[in-house]
Amino acid sequence: MVSEPIKKIIKYALAEDIGTGDITTQVTVSPRKKGKAIAVAKENFVVAGIDVFVETFRFLDETIRVKILIDDGRRAKKGDALVQISGNLSDILQAERVALNLFQRMCGIATLTAEYVKAVRGTNAIILDTRKTAPGLRILDKMAVRIGGGRNHRIGLYDGILIKDNHIEAAGSIAAAVKAQRKNPFMKIEVETRNIKEVKEALKCNVDVIMLDNMNIPVMKKAIEMINGRVLIEASGNVSLENVADIAKIGVDFISVGELTHSVRAADISLKIIA
Amino acid sequence: MVSEPIKKIIKYALAEDIGTGDITTQVTVSPRKKGKAIAVAKENFVVAGIDVFVETFRFLDETIRVKILIDDGRRAKKGDALVQISGNLSDILQAERVALNLFQRMCGIATLTAEYVKAVRGTNAIILDTRKTAPGLRILDKMAVRIGGGRNHRIGLYDGILIKDNHIEAAGSIAAAVKAQRKNPFMKIEVETRNIKEVKEALKCNVDVIMLDNMNIPVMKKAIEMINGRVLIEASGNVSLENVADIAKIGVDFISVGELTHSVRAADISLKIIA
Amino acid sequence: MVSEPIKKIIKYALAEDIGTGDITTQVTVSPRKKGKAIAVAKENFVVAGIDVFVETFRFLDETIRVKILIDDGRRAKKGDALVQISGNLSDILQAERVALNLFQRMCGIATLTAEYVKAVRGTNAIILDTRKTAPGLRILDKMAVRIGGGRNHRIGLYDGILIKDNHIEAAGSIAAAVKAQRKNPFMKIEVETRNIKEVKEALKCNVDVIMLDNMNIPVMKKAIEMINGRVLIEASGNVSLENVADIAKIGVDFISVGELTHSVRAADISLKIIA
Amino acid sequence: MVSEPIKKIIKYALAEDIGTGDITTQVTVSPRKKGKAIAVAKENFVVAGIDVFVETFRFLDETIRVKILIDDGRRAKKGDALVQISGNLSDILQAERVALNLFQRMCGIATLTAEYVKAVRGTNAIILDTRKTAPGLRILDKMAVRIGGGRNHRIGLYDGILIKDNHIEAAGSIAAAVKAQRKNPFMKIEVETRNIKEVKEALKCNVDVIMLDNMNIPVMKKAIEMINGRVLIEASGNVSLENVADIAKIGVDFISVGELTHSVRAADISLKIIA
Amino acid sequence: MVSEPIKKIIKYALAEDIGTGDITTQVTVSPRKKGKAIAVAKENFVVAGIDVFVETFRFLDETIRVKILIDDGRRAKKGDALVQISGNLSDILQAERVALNLFQRMCGIATLTAEYVKAVRGTNAIILDTRKTAPGLRILDKMAVRIGGGRNHRIGLYDGILIKDNHIEAAGSIAAAVKAQRKNPFMKIEVETRNIKEVKEALKCNVDVIMLDNMNIPVMKKAIEMINGRVLIEASGNVSLENVADIAKIGVDFISVGELTHSVRAADISLKIIA
Amino acid sequence: MVSEPIKKIIKYALAEDIGTGDITTQVTVSPRKKGKAIAVAKENFVVAGIDVFVETFRFLDETIRVKILIDDGRRAKKGDALVQISGNLSDILQAERVALNLFQRMCGIATLTAEYVKAVRGTNAIILDTRKTAPGLRILDKMAVRIGGGRNHRIGLYDGILIKDNHIEAAGSIAAAVKAQRKNPFMKIEVETRNIKEVKEALKCNVDVIMLDNMNIPVMKKAIEMINGRVLIEASGNVSLENVADIAKIGVDFISVGELTHSVRAADISLKIIA
Repeated sequence: MVSEPIKKIIKYALAEDIGTGDITTQVTVSPRKKGKAIAVAKENFVVAGIDVFVETFRFLDETIRVKILIDDGRRAKKGDALVQISGNLSDILQAERVALNLFQRMCGIATLTAEYVKAVRGTNAIILDTRKTAPGLRILDKMAVRIGGGRNHRIGLYDGILIKDNHIEAAGSIAAAVKAQRKNPFMKIEVETRNIKEVKEALKCNVDVIMLDNMNIPVMKKAIEMINGRVLIEASGNVSLENVADIAKIGVDFISVGELTHSVRAADISLKIIA
Repeated sequence: MVSEPIKKIIKYALAEDIGTGDITTQVTVSPRKKGKAIAVAKENFVVAGIDVFVETFRFLDETIRVKILIDDGRRAKKGDALVQISGNLSDILQAERVALNLFQRMCGIATLTAEYVKAVRGTNAIILDTRKTAPGLRILDKMAVRIGGGRNHRIGLYDGILIKDNHIEAAGSIAAAVKAQRKNPFMKIEVETRNIKEVKEALKCNVDVIMLDNMNIPVMKKAIEMINGRVLIEASGNVSLENVADIAKIGVDFISVGELTHSVRAADISLKIIA
Repeated sequence: MVSEPIKKIIKYALAEDIGTGDITTQVTVSPRKKGKAIAVAKENFVVAGIDVFVETFRFLDETIRVKILIDDGRRAKKGDALVQISGNLSDILQAERVALNLFQRMCGIATLTAEYVKAVRGTNAIILDTRKTAPGLRILDKMAVRIGGGRNHRIGLYDGILIKDNHIEAAGSIAAAVKAQRKNPFMKIEVETRNIKEVKEALKCNVDVIMLDNMNIPVMKKAIEMINGRVLIEASGNVSLENVADIAKIGVDFISVGELTHSVRAADISLKIIA
Repeated sequence: MVSEPIKKIIKYALAEDIGTGDITTQVTVSPRKKGKAIAVAKENFVVAGIDVFVETFRFLDETIRVKILIDDGRRAKKGDALVQISGNLSDILQAERVALNLFQRMCGIATLTAEYVKAVRGTNAIILDTRKTAPGLRILDKMAVRIGGGRNHRIGLYDGILIKDNHIEAAGSIAAAVKAQRKNPFMKIEVETRNIKEVKEALKCNVDVIMLDNMNIPVMKKAIEMINGRVLIEASGNVSLENVADIAKIGVDFISVGELTHSVRAADISLKIIA
Repeated sequence: MVSEPIKKIIKYALAEDIGTGDITTQVTVSPRKKGKAIAVAKENFVVAGIDVFVETFRFLDETIRVKILIDDGRRAKKGDALVQISGNLSDILQAERVALNLFQRMCGIATLTAEYVKAVRGTNAIILDTRKTAPGLRILDKMAVRIGGGRNHRIGLYDGILIKDNHIEAAGSIAAAVKAQRKNPFMKIEVETRNIKEVKEALKCNVDVIMLDNMNIPVMKKAIEMINGRVLIEASGNVSLENVADIAKIGVDFISVGELTHSVRAADISLKIIA
Repeated sequence: MVSEPIKKIIKYALAEDIGTGDITTQVTVSPRKKGKAIAVAKENFVVAGIDVFVETFRFLDETIRVKILIDDGRRAKKGDALVQISGNLSDILQAERVALNLFQRMCGIATLTAEYVKAVRGTNAIILDTRKTAPGLRILDKMAVRIGGGRNHRIGLYDGILIKDNHIEAAGSIAAAVKAQRKNPFMKIEVETRNIKEVKEALKCNVDVIMLDNMNIPVMKKAIEMINGRVLIEASGNVSLENVADIAKIGVDFISVGELTHSVRAADISLKIIA
């Protein structure tokens, strides 16, 4: 239920925490003792990553049994039981912290994403993530954004073209940079612009998406009028829950929000051993 | 300047972002073009991880030259230049995002840690981290806590003994659990307690540290009186910048704060290409 | 000069061949003996992968000196010297076979690609590769195609959308499948079609590229008329050097050729030790 | 049914193709949808690698069910069904290309090997492969040669001794080189010779195999007379389907053919989803 | 039944021995042939590592059935059957040597440890291991020591503090070195001393354990009197079965013995195929 | 100076010991402090593995300077300085234990091997090692045997054919087993025999080496007479320093000794920091 790259993250995270062995559990809990546990929400949030949570326990105990009570994308309220697991108690105790670390981060990301999505409701704007993720956890961070109702910008430098100022300068002009990209005929081309002059140039080059980077709302409005629906538009830079609705209303297609993944507040979840 | 486990994190993070290649940079920036860049603080924070930041660029370009302007542990002000690097422009552009992701997280952690440390100034309390770190980044998260003035609790399950309720229950009693741990004669033993009765039991067992878990201040005070300096005391659970000074004043030795690493706000840093 | 993923291929290939040690060389060639060697073309071909060739030797001997005589993309004639290397003789002998295996394959791919490109000269058709590459060597196979004058279709399943019959069937219709893909707003969408009816449907869905799969020339002509320049067109299936010009002339944008990488004839190159 | 080193190849090849996820399949095919598929021969060839083909699907879906219809070593005719698999449709679609890439290459190698073996039928000559394999795929390439009726020369530099001109020159003489090899008393010793004089020298040294490298048929005949059955003889260099029978008839024990693995034509196989 | 780090050791050890394949077994034993085998003691020893032994076979044949006859920690006599396994014969033959290499080493370590433990019976001294283990096998070496009745000193440099002469010299004094260590408040601090003067200094610093390194018995006696029960005492250096009882009797808490793991005599065990 | 597989062993061994960091050294020794150290023999032995020893330090400090005083294969006397290294003190201290563990084991193996070689001096018998090595360290164990004057039997199951009783039984007869091996025409074939009848059978099959397994001297004598120089002979089983000369004198070609690597006594070496 969880892809190979995610399994690799889990494997690595467990190795990081357990190392040569959980010295406390080894001498107090018999490897044969069974246990049952539930994950409980200690506050309200959007659930995300329940399969990742479960797989972390399964990595140590293949025979674990699972009952998912609130699935990804649904809202949990303080006190809600999220999922129940039964298996070897010592494995549950050893995987607990890693499983929670992964799960709480994903729920935190999904919850904040959902707030942004709610803030732009009624407009056409789509909330996007960025590459500002926790190194090593990108695919989980981006999965959580999707669960929260956002969409993903490129996953890495390899699966999308985004021409920034330094590329333009190195190539000589927006036109030259865009032309060079035509060697990748199956990729959409996005160009970052910082002012109306650059928007104009980008428009001439027949790009697919224009990013309006760190512009204020009046300038963005002017840019949108000029573009007039010919290409997709992404607003980027200094977006917050306070201003996102205003940005959305002027008619951009996408709003990318670094905060979604670079400043995560973990959702509060605890694991209770119940038997 | 950076240990092998940190190099491995950097290697993995760059592979995650660059994958089969930075398709934008490959066709716009000549591999031979040189560049110079400075990292600039966009807000006030405590610098942490400058070697990690630099090493990320060095991983792609061994010949990179570096001038560190504000070193780990010092405070940067908005607008300060932190470090200057010179090398292959295309390598700088490809490493930029990963280097910043790592650096901004570490600065964010150190800055919050420093706030907690400042809040308990004048008391004997030491601010500790927990195992609630971003999976895969624990040694960096814990390094940032140290730079911010905190100290590290155990790194993982393998290098410290912390007897929790489930261990006690599985062993039968605090005494039985502690006795089992005597097989690790070179490790200090810490026991988590949830009430005065458990504190009393733990005291009898000659443990090294007693954790007061999720107790309110009056209960903690009572526990401290009872313990009367015989063992070290750690306060844990629901610690915030608002209440940490009050907790410190009652005389605990350690206060552990999950927020330091589970709810990181990235420090705002940008990389400017200046030549 | 060679990216991390390519270095990993070289490392793995050398380990595969050398294993626990070159037992012949170990006892006959002193590790301190120096040598000089040149790679010589034994037939005419397009050079591709000279950096990969050189890096293979450098992996065993960091101090190797190199003189490139005919660079990537240029044509070598039978008897031409391609590159000269000087270093430890025992390292040269141990890396020889792996270096040649990689180099000969890349030159073979570039040479065949160049023949296809030449065959469509005078038309607008671009020669594309496919995912029919040697497992583990894809980035080298695709690099060789670029050097030979072709362009790359998607690198893997992760960096491009290609909706095939099974996806359409699972989704219910072309329209449904295309709509589902809108969740990846930064990717171009290509749909595989097998007849005029499917081309019509795909056109309605506003896709970016239509693949004409295994159609004969009269059917492709009809499709092209219907599409009338509104979307890009890729011809695919049963393309050979015999028929590629005819396909190109009817006005498709891309022609993808599996043979380029699935049926490679290694270029004939030998390494001569000259001192 | 497939060894650990082969599993590692499959794992790596799937990671190469799927990367962070098959973005087309993820949004169109439910992870719970079941499917059935058959691999069908689109031309005549010798089947090789059917376990490797099957294992590639099993890597993504452990519960896959398999019916092998034509096993390794048998001849498939155009239109024949080779193997049927049933399992999760999305896993089948994601593994399809890698499974076919591996399988088609192995069938291609086995088919060409079988042609060579047929060409020398009636003689004592054994067809051998070389180390001219696709880097990373050597054990599969060599397995395919065995299935096609050939035999393997050494797998790598570590499991066989082959003294070439450069070793001889470095050691001073054939005699000196052979003597040095006596330190590996459990390995057969083969010496490469380029003329009658070298054959004579090698014979004196009591080697196990003499390779006649790039000699024409009259010279090889003379060498064989001189050797007169005392050691095994391998013919090598410029062997083709046209001349292999002539070489075999003069009485060599082995004929090694680089083309078997360095210039593979993939057998034409397609996967049809039938339910 | 065996932890992830141990599985990794087994995986690596099998790869080291089997490489690209067991060429003898491949052509003589059908992969479908079943077999049964018992491990038999060829001398008297303490059994240790039976799970590791079994897991080695299970790595190649998941379906293996096992009957443990003499478990870890018990004494086997010459001729005793230790464990019976049934599964694929070819997998049993391929894993045999690695499984025995691991098992014989562990039994050897446990047996020698048990002799030391027996020699100090009646005293309070605990027999400890050191870091003088076979590189790569430390967790197995240390597990065997525990099974033999000894206890583990720190596993590596990361999970225990041991201040040696060079640390003291670099820090300036014992006091300075110990003070620096206070940054790790959850670790016990041990100091190595070479004479009475150093013992005195260490005592002043409130360390947890004092190591008496390479002292003769009269000097150790003097040190013990001075320490007078205030801290734990470890005797180290030149310990042998001849002198260990004498050292134990003077009242040290721990005696560390490098020989336990750096000079292992493999227990004599053979695997008999019985069907 | 050290091959890739050996570098991998060193890397893994250092990671095993250092883990997340040497907590003692980190806080006491400045990373910039320089140091000089010499390895000193504490007893007499044959030096083996000096490059491995040095490379272990170089792994942590690339700039280390080295002066080798007694090279591999020479005899060190108690008190002799073996090698001097200068570099970062903290790196020297962190690598010390691993470097010594590897070096002491190799010297121990070489020393015992040299004793066996000396014991058979004057005969034609060659001392061989076995596959009874420390898992993970085989190439070092076998290198040490060569340095001590012995020779290597096969490195693993992949580079030599040794037909044992179970292979014979599975194949049906010695003749059938040997015939099956003819598929590997470039490998010598050895057959294990347990009595005269089996020797007779093996002789008929034209094998290259006959192993006399666990036979007493009179039986071996009879076997040697029967073989009469037609094939090479290896004596195996229960060989000790006491009986090896007697075995050698009866005229076998090889004597394999498991003890060389399965029961290693580490040579006593210490590292002295001298500045």
